[in-house]
Amino acid sequence: MPNPEPMVELWRGGLLESTHAGHAVICGAKGVVQAWGDPGAVIFPRSSCKMIQALPLVETGAADAVCLTDAHLALACASHQGERRHVTMAADWLSTIGLAEPALRCGAHEPYDRVERNRLIKTDSSPCQLHNNCSGKHCGFLTVTQHMKAGPEYVEVDHPLQRAIRQATEEVTGETVAGYGIDGCSAPNFAVSITGLARAMALFANASEGGDTRSRAMHRLTRAMATYPELVAGEGRACTELMRAMGGKVTLKTGAEAVFVAILPEQKLGMAVKITDGGTRGAEAAITALLVRAGVLDANHPAAQKRLGGTQTNWRGLQTGETRTAPGFPG
Amino acid sequence: MPNPEPMVELWRGGLLESTHAGHAVICGAKGVVQAWGDPGAVIFPRSSCKMIQALPLVETGAADAVCLTDAHLALACASHQGERRHVTMAADWLSTIGLAEPALRCGAHEPYDRVERNRLIKTDSSPCQLHNNCSGKHCGFLTVTQHMKAGPEYVEVDHPLQRAIRQATEEVTGETVAGYGIDGCSAPNFAVSITGLARAMALFANASEGGDTRSRAMHRLTRAMATYPELVAGEGRACTELMRAMGGKVTLKTGAEAVFVAILPEQKLGMAVKITDGGTRGAEAAITALLVRAGVLDANHPAAQKRLGGTQTNWRGLQTGETRTAPGFPG
Repeated sequence: MPNPEPMVELWRGGLLESTHAGHAVICGAKGVVQAWGDPGAVIFPRSSCKMIQALPLVETGAADAVCLTDAHLALACASHQGERRHVTMAADWLSTIGLAEPALRCGAHEPYDRVERNRLIKTDSSPCQLHNNCSGKHCGFLTVTQHMKAGPEYVEVDHPLQRAIRQATEEVTGETVAGYGIDGCSAPNFAVSITGLARAMALFANASEGGDTRSRAMHRLTRAMATYPELVAGEGRACTELMRAMGGKVTLKTGAEAVFVAILPEQKLGMAVKITDGGTRGAEAAITALLVRAGVLDANHPAAQKRLGGTQTNWRGLQTGETRTAPGFPG
Repeated sequence: MPNPEPMVELWRGGLLESTHAGHAVICGAKGVVQAWGDPGAVIFPRSSCKMIQALPLVETGAADAVCLTDAHLALACASHQGERRHVTMAADWLSTIGLAEPALRCGAHEPYDRVERNRLIKTDSSPCQLHNNCSGKHCGFLTVTQHMKAGPEYVEVDHPLQRAIRQATEEVTGETVAGYGIDGCSAPNFAVSITGLARAMALFANASEGGDTRSRAMHRLTRAMATYPELVAGEGRACTELMRAMGGKVTLKTGAEAVFVAILPEQKLGMAVKITDGGTRGAEAAITALLVRAGVLDANHPAAQKRLGGTQTNWRGLQTGETRTAPGFPG
């Protein structure tokens, strides 16, 4: 079993301070193109697989039955930061299908977005489940659940929706899931190998409007995310800023515990990264390095420099350090 | 050069999700007692060395000259979370020495404490430098600077205060510093080996009221921190909760990028941990494991379980995973 590959280094005062190592795989239509670390490593994709979890929403016809737009589909694949637009869109979506916030099963947490966070604090309001970064996914879950005429506890692993997601996961990764964990938003998260996750992303990259139901759904979700980068995460966040920097040509998604995936339709490639220590900054730097190397991201773009290569400053604006790729990565 | 030792594992759904590896050294009066990973690894102690940075404050007589209490000394060694009491105490301290907030050179950041953070937001106030987690250290810096009749730019590496701190660092670690970086609070942070840092902590542990100037200063700072755990960090934080759990018998300090040190006066031991990926949760779990193994912390205490061994829950209170020590650590 190969060791995790050193991928990202943090330097301060001319000395190496911290290091991130992990696994990464790039797949094309015919399989693995390149791998770092252990391509067989079993991981939890966490939120990086939201486009897989959204497949039943499109494939069952549930999305079209209630006239969801591509913006809705982007929100269904999002880890949004609870900006007002995200919260309003999720609320309106639930209203459209005759439901409201209590139907959600994602739990509430303070929004990452400072404007909305401060608004809540100033008005003595508590965050609700609509603020949860996964609320769009859960709106999608409820839409399929209603379409399936299934019960309200849609995050239970034996619920018809979760069974459909497990099946879709196994089909697109080409693997039997290795187990499941309960995610921060209470939904089951199915464990697969990093190669399986990259293989799934390659399927998304190779999907087309003229293909079968699966291929059309994959194509639509990939385009929806790339078209609405601001709905997939939010201002200042890696997915949003990097997708914008690549002009919508690449679809990105982060996941908790340092997972990052990329779908490159023009190159027909899928990428998956897992930093083994779970440090998000490591995953953001590593996927930035892979995208630069693939020729789809300008290393000097501010969105790239913010994650890799640029200098880090402190509260007084003094330069303190920088983030670099580890020697030999990505090669 | 030995590899970092796997120390901490995060499990979810019965599967290993993330891992933290690092270096750790335990020293006694006669040197290294036990080591994990690479005992020669050069690290930035970051805020874990604040009791070293406070040595000139006590040793020059500056602290006594302005009648600082042990509570002030605890705040000088703190990475506090900007609770109202921390901010007020720092403001009063500056006032005592005839200075005010603009004399600080630490920069401002939003306090980690939610009560104070929300108060600022509700009153449309901006955080000031007193909210910076290092403001107590900087009050100490200004007190020595004034005592030395040195210039106001006390964070410059050639300032008499920083030269004194460098000398103290070299004396207590038994090493020539390997270089320096600029810390988040703009002060120089001198790089030493993890063994040097543990050796320094052992000196603190072996210090006594009846010793020489250095020994008395070390003893006083160690006791001050253990006596006022709430000033060293704040409610809910690892240093505060774990020091309380050990009834003031052990002095603890965290540092950015996953450094943690412990001073055990009864056992006459010093400990230092660095998780190589910089993940704070890893350092908190690893020092918890070492303290439990040393017999000074009850593994079942809620403060210990919160960092190691206890279950993790999500926004709806569902159990999602747990944090464990890696096989063989700490042995």
